[in-house]
Amino acid sequence: MSKETIPYKIYLNESEMPTQWYNLRADMKIKPAPLLNPGTGKPMTAEELGVVFCSDLVQQELDNDTKYFAIPDEILSFYKMYRPSPLVRAYCLEEKLKTPAKIYYKFEGNNTSGSHKLNSAIAQAYYAKKQGLKGVTTETGAGQWGTALSMACAYLGLDCKVFMVKCSYEQKPFRREVMRTYGASVTPSPSMETEVGRRINQAHPGTTGSLGCAISEAVEVAVKSEGYRYVLGSVLNQVLLHQSVIGLEAKAACDKYGIKPDLIIGCAGGGSNLGGLIAPFMGEKLRGEADYRFIAVEPASCPSFTRGIYAYDFCDTGMVCPLAKMYTLGSDFIPSPNHAGGLRFHGMSSILSELYDEGLMEARAVKQTDVFDAAEYFARCEGILPAPESSHAIRVALDEAIKCRETGEEKTILFGLTGTGYFDMVAYEKYHDGKMDDYIPTDEELAVYRAKLPKIG
Amino acid sequence: MSKETIPYKIYLNESEMPTQWYNLRADMKIKPAPLLNPGTGKPMTAEELGVVFCSDLVQQELDNDTKYFAIPDEILSFYKMYRPSPLVRAYCLEEKLKTPAKIYYKFEGNNTSGSHKLNSAIAQAYYAKKQGLKGVTTETGAGQWGTALSMACAYLGLDCKVFMVKCSYEQKPFRREVMRTYGASVTPSPSMETEVGRRINQAHPGTTGSLGCAISEAVEVAVKSEGYRYVLGSVLNQVLLHQSVIGLEAKAACDKYGIKPDLIIGCAGGGSNLGGLIAPFMGEKLRGEADYRFIAVEPASCPSFTRGIYAYDFCDTGMVCPLAKMYTLGSDFIPSPNHAGGLRFHGMSSILSELYDEGLMEARAVKQTDVFDAAEYFARCEGILPAPESSHAIRVALDEAIKCRETGEEKTILFGLTGTGYFDMVAYEKYHDGKMDDYIPTDEELAVYRAKLPKIG
Repeated sequence: MSKETIPYKIYLNESEMPTQWYNLRADMKIKPAPLLNPGTGKPMTAEELGVVFCSDLVQQELDNDTKYFAIPDEILSFYKMYRPSPLVRAYCLEEKLKTPAKIYYKFEGNNTSGSHKLNSAIAQAYYAKKQGLKGVTTETGAGQWGTALSMACAYLGLDCKVFMVKCSYEQKPFRREVMRTYGASVTPSPSMETEVGRRINQAHPGTTGSLGCAISEAVEVAVKSEGYRYVLGSVLNQVLLHQSVIGLEAKAACDKYGIKPDLIIGCAGGGSNLGGLIAPFMGEKLRGEADYRFIAVEPASCPSFTRGIYAYDFCDTGMVCPLAKMYTLGSDFIPSPNHAGGLRFHGMSSILSELYDEGLMEARAVKQTDVFDAAEYFARCEGILPAPESSHAIRVALDEAIKCRETGEEKTILFGLTGTGYFDMVAYEKYHDGKMDDYIPTDEELAVYRAKLPKIG
Repeated sequence: MSKETIPYKIYLNESEMPTQWYNLRADMKIKPAPLLNPGTGKPMTAEELGVVFCSDLVQQELDNDTKYFAIPDEILSFYKMYRPSPLVRAYCLEEKLKTPAKIYYKFEGNNTSGSHKLNSAIAQAYYAKKQGLKGVTTETGAGQWGTALSMACAYLGLDCKVFMVKCSYEQKPFRREVMRTYGASVTPSPSMETEVGRRINQAHPGTTGSLGCAISEAVEVAVKSEGYRYVLGSVLNQVLLHQSVIGLEAKAACDKYGIKPDLIIGCAGGGSNLGGLIAPFMGEKLRGEADYRFIAVEPASCPSFTRGIYAYDFCDTGMVCPLAKMYTLGSDFIPSPNHAGGLRFHGMSSILSELYDEGLMEARAVKQTDVFDAAEYFARCEGILPAPESSHAIRVALDEAIKCRETGEEKTILFGLTGTGYFDMVAYEKYHDGKMDDYIPTDEELAVYRAKLPKIG
């Protein structure tokens, strides 16, 4: 197709927007392994999960068979305020790279939360509201998820309690302030408001916290407070289900213009964006209707796929959550300083882990400085300041486009641009000043954490 | 029209995007007063202006007759990367306000510069490139203009030297870092790199600078450097010409869906956004083809329209720029602390000043705390975190919609949402903490500055 027929930005009409989420698990021959109760070693029941999560979400979490879930009207209305997101043809990037490749990206950053996280936040808040709850609790590290959930709760008039990792709370006051604008209460974690927080503060005076600790605090408050449940922004099956809206829109836009991607690339932390983007394409592959290459991109400092093992592990460092089977580095693993906070999780979605294990998807680990090289290159020609997380996907998209320049192949590359970097300027500053940390864990280090994995499954 | 037929967001197709800028001056019976040479008191000639500005831009500045200027293809291509901007129907806001009014806003914040400033930045950078220049110089206060110009220059491979008011440089390191990402050099002003900067630093040791001083530094560097010109983000006729793309798109979207605004509202600092938004609508009014009410909204702390006078004045505090006839508070006037940095200019575009003087447009001044009340209310239901500048327009749009609730009138309100507030979280924090300054200058204070106006024209 010529440049005339494919616009710079493809926006679906409202009538073309998906009205159902797609459950990739329904098309998987080998289903993702179930969550296990760490006490009994048996699969978590709906009843057990219902103590922590909203009941509709528990159903979505456990349902491996229903192929499509209708998106409730209230969520569709909310989606229409910031969706459809554009599928962008990167004409300027192609020209600057002098590549015969055609590059597309699905841009999820054009909403105030700055990322795709809002797609699941509104869904989870909606089901909490539907259940008659007063509010929800959650944790946030980099802040994208906390911001998204605050926005969703403000829209629905739901209370929102966010536990923010203390060092982020102090280093990212602006993120905190956005959440306050949306009426959320933001508590630095570990706090003195929970048992687990007080215990940790006593054991480690002056600690600046961790995501694992913030999760434990948020779960404790949800379980102990009348009318509250806990919500999570990634990893879980339900989250990937909601995020399928990204892939469904991308697929509809591709189909509308006759675009057939050869290669689909996404960054992967817990897997919410990647799982959502690839879902309908992977479905076609699983059903034998089409073939695509998929590449998950992770930081070399936290290489769950490329250097982790496929095993049952805790989702949090506090070990209060169920066990999940996943590619993991061990729940104790703390990655070296990396500015892609959303990719610093030690494990990976069970769905994606299973697909990777079956060889249906590839993975690549990239160094931080290389990521920021790509981020800056991209910003200067495409005019979007990308989040460090998203820039992992940009790095590999550039690498593949450069390969095409060398081989002359006219591949079609699609990648997920999950969000903007407005709140990540400290990272860009470090990059400009040549102070970026590119530490990669040694095999010996990784072995230490691997040895501590629970002996289950 | 029913909710079904008007989508939440109206995006024009690429083929419906404007290909010409509209020059409102061509339809004005009384033309805006010309810029004067402060030395001779005579209108500035093209030759005189050409020392400071690019030649094509000088032509655009002086041309009161040509109705349409073709937008060069290179600029159209750039526009297609982030335009058309959506015309949004604020369904959620209407519902929450329980107003019979229909509220629309033209949202210009979905690009990395975060505002409408990019529309003119790319045009000015393009003409500089076309003239074979090496680069451009400018000043920036809040940082939106500097960011926009950096992006445009990065795209075209042009050097960009930004003088940033020193207190902003220090308080807004993230803005500075975005500009660095786009390859611009950012110098805190007053600097030791210019004569005027050294003079000011000597006279006022430890000064944190002002916009007026930064302008003087940028002009000095442009004039003294081979292959450089100075560019400005507001006030000038050429800027309003480029910004007409906002209004042209809004008008096309309205026409497409049969929307007829009764009331068009925009914030006004130098006038670039308001002038651009209203241009084609005002054109219809001037030609007697349709009638609209227009409201310019300014901060009560810097009330150029509502409490200034219509006279010739300097555009900068350093008095190195030509004299412009405009509503002004006096070039020495320093507004009290206000977080809408883009609205802290003592004067107003000559075009808008003339229209206001003829009674073709109204103006309203609003207090800072009231503005942030509106900003937060808007953010919570429409999901966009507005810039403090833009929130001035939101305030009056809300007031008018509330009036409609009381009178039962089904007015159609259109306002300009110029940008996002990602880099303004210090302001939001002050608001949340109840520390906002609502100082309004007294009549006596304003009289002091008025007395210092140059006695010309």
